[in-house]
Amino acid sequence: MTEQRQLKLGVSIRALGYHAGGWRHPGVPADGAMDFAHFLNVARIAEAAKLDMLFLADGLGIRQKDQPAGSLCRSNQNAELEPITLLSALAALTSRIGLVATASTTYNEPYHLARKFGSLDHISKGRAGWNLVTSWSDAEAFNFGRDHQMAYDDRYERAMEFAEVATGLWDSWEADAFRHDKASGVFYDPDKLHTLDHRGKHFAVRGPLSVARTPQGRPVIVQAGASEQGRDIAARFADVVFSAEQNLASARDYYASVKGRLPAHGRRAGELLILPGLVPIVGATRAEAQAKHDELQELIDPLVGLAGIYGNFGDLSGYPLDGPVPEPQDPKLRSRAAVMFRLAQEKGYSIRQLYQAVASGRGHRTVIGTPADIADTMADWVEQKAADGFNIIPTHLPVGLEDFVRLVLPELRRRGLFRDDYEATTFRGNLGLPEPRNRHVAAREGGVPLSA
Amino acid sequence: MTEQRQLKLGVSIRALGYHAGGWRHPGVPADGAMDFAHFLNVARIAEAAKLDMLFLADGLGIRQKDQPAGSLCRSNQNAELEPITLLSALAALTSRIGLVATASTTYNEPYHLARKFGSLDHISKGRAGWNLVTSWSDAEAFNFGRDHQMAYDDRYERAMEFAEVATGLWDSWEADAFRHDKASGVFYDPDKLHTLDHRGKHFAVRGPLSVARTPQGRPVIVQAGASEQGRDIAARFADVVFSAEQNLASARDYYASVKGRLPAHGRRAGELLILPGLVPIVGATRAEAQAKHDELQELIDPLVGLAGIYGNFGDLSGYPLDGPVPEPQDPKLRSRAAVMFRLAQEKGYSIRQLYQAVASGRGHRTVIGTPADIADTMADWVEQKAADGFNIIPTHLPVGLEDFVRLVLPELRRRGLFRDDYEATTFRGNLGLPEPRNRHVAAREGGVPLSA
Ligand SMILES: Cc1cc2nc3c(=O)[nH]c(=O)nc-3n(C[C@H](O)[C@H](O)[C@H](O)COP(=O)(O)O)c2cc1C
Ligand SMILES: Cc1cc2nc3c(=O)[nH]c(=O)nc-3n(C[C@H](O)[C@H](O)[C@H](O)COP(=O)(O)O)c2cc1C
Repeated sequence: MTEQRQLKLGVSIRALGYHAGGWRHPGVPADGAMDFAHFLNVARIAEAAKLDMLFLADGLGIRQKDQPAGSLCRSNQNAELEPITLLSALAALTSRIGLVATASTTYNEPYHLARKFGSLDHISKGRAGWNLVTSWSDAEAFNFGRDHQMAYDDRYERAMEFAEVATGLWDSWEADAFRHDKASGVFYDPDKLHTLDHRGKHFAVRGPLSVARTPQGRPVIVQAGASEQGRDIAARFADVVFSAEQNLASARDYYASVKGRLPAHGRRAGELLILPGLVPIVGATRAEAQAKHDELQELIDPLVGLAGIYGNFGDLSGYPLDGPVPEPQDPKLRSRAAVMFRLAQEKGYSIRQLYQAVASGRGHRTVIGTPADIADTMADWVEQKAADGFNIIPTHLPVGLEDFVRLVLPELRRRGLFRDDYEATTFRGNLGLPEPRNRHVAAREGGVPLSA
Repeated sequence: MTEQRQLKLGVSIRALGYHAGGWRHPGVPADGAMDFAHFLNVARIAEAAKLDMLFLADGLGIRQKDQPAGSLCRSNQNAELEPITLLSALAALTSRIGLVATASTTYNEPYHLARKFGSLDHISKGRAGWNLVTSWSDAEAFNFGRDHQMAYDDRYERAMEFAEVATGLWDSWEADAFRHDKASGVFYDPDKLHTLDHRGKHFAVRGPLSVARTPQGRPVIVQAGASEQGRDIAARFADVVFSAEQNLASARDYYASVKGRLPAHGRRAGELLILPGLVPIVGATRAEAQAKHDELQELIDPLVGLAGIYGNFGDLSGYPLDGPVPEPQDPKLRSRAAVMFRLAQEKGYSIRQLYQAVASGRGHRTVIGTPADIADTMADWVEQKAADGFNIIPTHLPVGLEDFVRLVLPELRRRGLFRDDYEATTFRGNLGLPEPRNRHVAAREGGVPLSA
């Protein structure tokens, strides 16, 4: 009973790509992170390929410390374009691809955020998405009047209330509220405008939102957070989950866990799509793919590589890079250090090999192989109920995306696993998701909260 | 000694235009306030006309109350697009016009704002501007966790510190900080990145900003606020002041007052441009112009008109519209009510005539006349040191702007008062303003703070 299901595919980007050495690759415009033309190029490649979404990760500041000394100025994630501003400009020059920006519930106000994403949904004619995150670094707290970040549980409590307020604001206007009747002078029907009057622990927001109901009802909500709290927010509010899963077994568990939470919120399994990240390194042959990976790994500057394991091992810049990994001494270092040390011993990794292993994929599943290898993994995960599709994470831009589009997509299409053209004009429509009903209409007319 | 000086001209827009009856005019797309195509049309008209800037006013919520009852649903200022999002999309489809968004220092965080306007400056290749306002309504406070707005002096104190932080963040990176050296692996020169470490009364912001120095050095800063505090912020930080002046004498006083404050901040008079708002109602003849004005005034819905004087006169909806204006009774009503009542008596205004007089111009100078009449006023104000140009405020869009461009601009060009083409590629360049030097470069190299 292998029901043929098409994959949903996004591309997750940030600056010049995710791989720590990627910016040094000859095909990467090293000044691209501040250059609109670079992102426009990537967006056009993704849209020509009929991908569902362009997904922009984000952080509110420069997160890394300069440890070991001299490492920070060798990393490319320090100056970039703000995602909402960037997506709005891209909205003007694209027509079908979904546009998702990451925005933190910890450092934003729901009124501003609902207004900006609502505007983006109008400007893009129904292609906006919000990746709801809670942020995780002190470096971001420092830019917003705090000496350290808010406690984990407080962040998630605030996030839940934030999502309540934002979705409430997006229901301020009913879809047919505006009459625009020049003859009678009536601009809108007052019965179809609703004031939120929210007063909670973290927010007091009266509303209504000064943005009309959006083309998608509300922007698509993406959630990226793996904890219990993250899963609960996803089950209640998200249309899409972006997860980081390294292997099939844990991805299946995660999939079942999140989908299993939907009925408690009156939702069906098909109303939430789970898209794990996937880093493809593709070549015509496996040897070619491996060579591409090796080339990237060699481009990791040793100081940047060491910065990637600093949090677990401390400063190893005094040790020979091709020598053995010293046992972590500092008791303050996290328990993950012990796991990594055991891995290094088992595999006989040098320091260089250890940081290379850590840098590759950054927590996401990496598949190095032929188009068939990568398509096999994708098909397998979908069939085994571990994924509804993937958020493709190119190592370096635009090259990693071009490789995926040129090599892997034809293979997926040959198998009937990916679309030839967009089915709909809105992001939600292409994802095959129902449009949320306005809560006030539902309260008046009854029926299910979603309209298909 | 009439030195020929060219005017700087912006166009200030919001939704469908400023006139309370404008949306009912046959030439106005009544659904335009949520429609990107409407704003793109306006931006293209303004750019084809070589105007300096498209200026977007803003408010953080629906400011009016429904008083008298039934008035709010007849007003068009209730649902619109958020200005930064909108300008970013417009940036992608324009190439020379300056793009200014209003953003409040009272309800924003400087890190977010510096990042968004910095990104807009990059995306637009040097055409971003920020209209710094402090906001003024309780309705906005209600959307941000407050029961009433912050006290006036606190708002301005916060605004001054906000501008310090934002300009400090925009100096985080020196212009030549990025090496992008693939061979050596050095992405930026660490000596050219500066951490702000601001700790003040209203804000603690470490920085640095994760946006590279922008094409204009920093976005153009516009200030709109007439009080002593507003003038001080303008003198210290602004490149442009947008003022509301009804007559030449007070405009001259204001001009002298603001320009006179510049030397205390080491700035010359030419480094700040003062652009009063001007509402042109233009016709081939004076009679035609007057007829256009009358047509608009007649389009004001009586309830909307009464809402415009509610704050001073209370609810007059029970009185005959064409009868006399009753004397304001409520002692709580502001002293401005007494002034308006005296005006109504002197001119023999009916209630309808009073609200029409108040609605027209909304505090700005309105000129009803031929192209020559309007050009005369403009030339006179510039010659008499009351203005460096104007922010044109169309009554209704796009019609009011089209009229100005078609009728008044040729007259200004005939007199040598307005450009035939843009002189520069950046907004700052077209305004003839110097580019601010990075404070860290200035500290190291000495010399004046501005580079021409
Ligand atoms: C796949 C994935 C992508 C994420 N992307 C971002 C991001 O772009 N920016 C961000 O601030 N946090 C991001 N996060 C972090 C989450 O918002 C969250 O703060 C973090 O995962 C801790 O929460 P958790 O324990 O629920 O996972 C991401 C998390 C995951 C799992
Ligand atoms: C010409 C002009 C335009 C303004 N535009 C806006 C605006 O778009 N949004 C806003 O919130 N405030 C706007 N303001 C209000 C100012 O920010 C300020 O709050 C108000 O004028 C009170 O300050 P003041 O006493 O210094 O004038 C404007 C003020 C002036 C004079």
